[in-house]
Amino acid sequence: MPPETKPRVEVLYCGDTSLDTAASYLAGLLANAGIKFHYVPSDKPVEENLVNGSWSLVIVSDYPSPRFSRELQNVVVSRVEKGAGLLMIGGWESFHGLGGDWDGTPIGDLLPVVIGNKDDRWNCDRPLIVKQQAAHPIVDALPFQSRPPLIGGLNRIQVKPGDTQLLSAEQFQLEWNGDTPQLKPSASYPLLVVGKRGQGRVATFSSDVAPHWVGPLVDWGDARVTATAPGAPGIEVGDLYTEFFTRLVLWTAGRP
Amino acid sequence: MPPETKPRVEVLYCGDTSLDTAASYLAGLLANAGIKFHYVPSDKPVEENLVNGSWSLVIVSDYPSPRFSRELQNVVVSRVEKGAGLLMIGGWESFHGLGGDWDGTPIGDLLPVVIGNKDDRWNCDRPLIVKQQAAHPIVDALPFQSRPPLIGGLNRIQVKPGDTQLLSAEQFQLEWNGDTPQLKPSASYPLLVVGKRGQGRVATFSSDVAPHWVGPLVDWGDARVTATAPGAPGIEVGDLYTEFFTRLVLWTAGRP
Repeated sequence: MPPETKPRVEVLYCGDTSLDTAASYLAGLLANAGIKFHYVPSDKPVEENLVNGSWSLVIVSDYPSPRFSRELQNVVVSRVEKGAGLLMIGGWESFHGLGGDWDGTPIGDLLPVVIGNKDDRWNCDRPLIVKQQAAHPIVDALPFQSRPPLIGGLNRIQVKPGDTQLLSAEQFQLEWNGDTPQLKPSASYPLLVVGKRGQGRVATFSSDVAPHWVGPLVDWGDARVTATAPGAPGIEVGDLYTEFFTRLVLWTAGRP
Repeated sequence: MPPETKPRVEVLYCGDTSLDTAASYLAGLLANAGIKFHYVPSDKPVEENLVNGSWSLVIVSDYPSPRFSRELQNVVVSRVEKGAGLLMIGGWESFHGLGGDWDGTPIGDLLPVVIGNKDDRWNCDRPLIVKQQAAHPIVDALPFQSRPPLIGGLNRIQVKPGDTQLLSAEQFQLEWNGDTPQLKPSASYPLLVVGKRGQGRVATFSSDVAPHWVGPLVDWGDARVTATAPGAPGIEVGDLYTEFFTRLVLWTAGRP
């Protein structure tokens, strides 16, 4: 469709420490896709004027829930039900995490996953291989079968009944048998889950968009992409990583 | 042996950006092991008084060679030949890297590996599995066979004749065959190489000690270790990761 008929995507992006550290990744991806965003670092509260301002998608990524007031979270819930989007990305301060504490909050309750009430971080030295679990516009065009990426860790959450798991992270035991690595399946975790809430869309990606949990996924693809958001250092990442997160953001913001 | 008869280990540590970012990892490991260190961030030159001061090991990790004068590098070379240690750890500004440019320098030439003259960074989305290649006190006590860690990337260097490769990173193609991941060997890169120079020891670890290249190795082990160096944020990492880098530092500094 011609650009002028696409819904305009504008993001309120909260978390990932600061633009000059971890947030340089997602901010770089947004800039690369030409998506306007308002940014709130992890150590600052979300302010009323931003939540009441213009946005079609809220992204919460490694941002502690106590800095997002219940009143303002309720504004987000109500706008999502009227057609906006909500995306939570994993990290040590996402979902429950270590100080994320999103369980029992208005935003946490709106997500397509159940968040537990204790530390849900899974820092994993064993192979965690991404696997596609359902067909969907976010993931169908990407080579999850022929070239699955690996990740380094995630928040352990559960899929809500009625919502859809698109990707899982399959964990294996690994050992060397001579020169041959032996993999034995040991666990499966939901990684990408999507759902509808009223007129809006919600999604969770329970690993991280930035090191260290993003793992080798950050370099997914043969071609390299360089991008720089205003106020952030440049990033150099894989083209399939770039395409995956761009598709996730656009779909959750309401794009077809 | 009783502590007082052990050679005293004191480190001159250059690189990994700054203590409040990537250097918090190795600095935390040194603090955890009770090892005194002098620190030089990646954007500051190495000063004469530090190089002429007391240290038994120089660690250069993601530090650009132009900030380490040839004259002071020659002091390092001469002290290593008399019994001190030299360790280079990989990263985007290590070996050749992107702006590391250690090829053709006194420190670069002393290392047990050959550094090329162009970008040697290998950002890898495919499984890079660590494999032990020789017996040695740094690696023998660790479960590289029964629980090999994965890494995310490395500098591609070559082992010098006469020096010893202790670890390699074995790269595999990966695809899903139904629910079974299929691995196919595709390349092998030197990861840990050691050597002797006069009375001193030299070593290179060509992946990174910090995210993102360290990959799942940072979480290697069942138990978690928390540590904090003065001036750095705390780290929480795997116990086998901690033991590996502690052994590497102590051996290169001259411990039996």
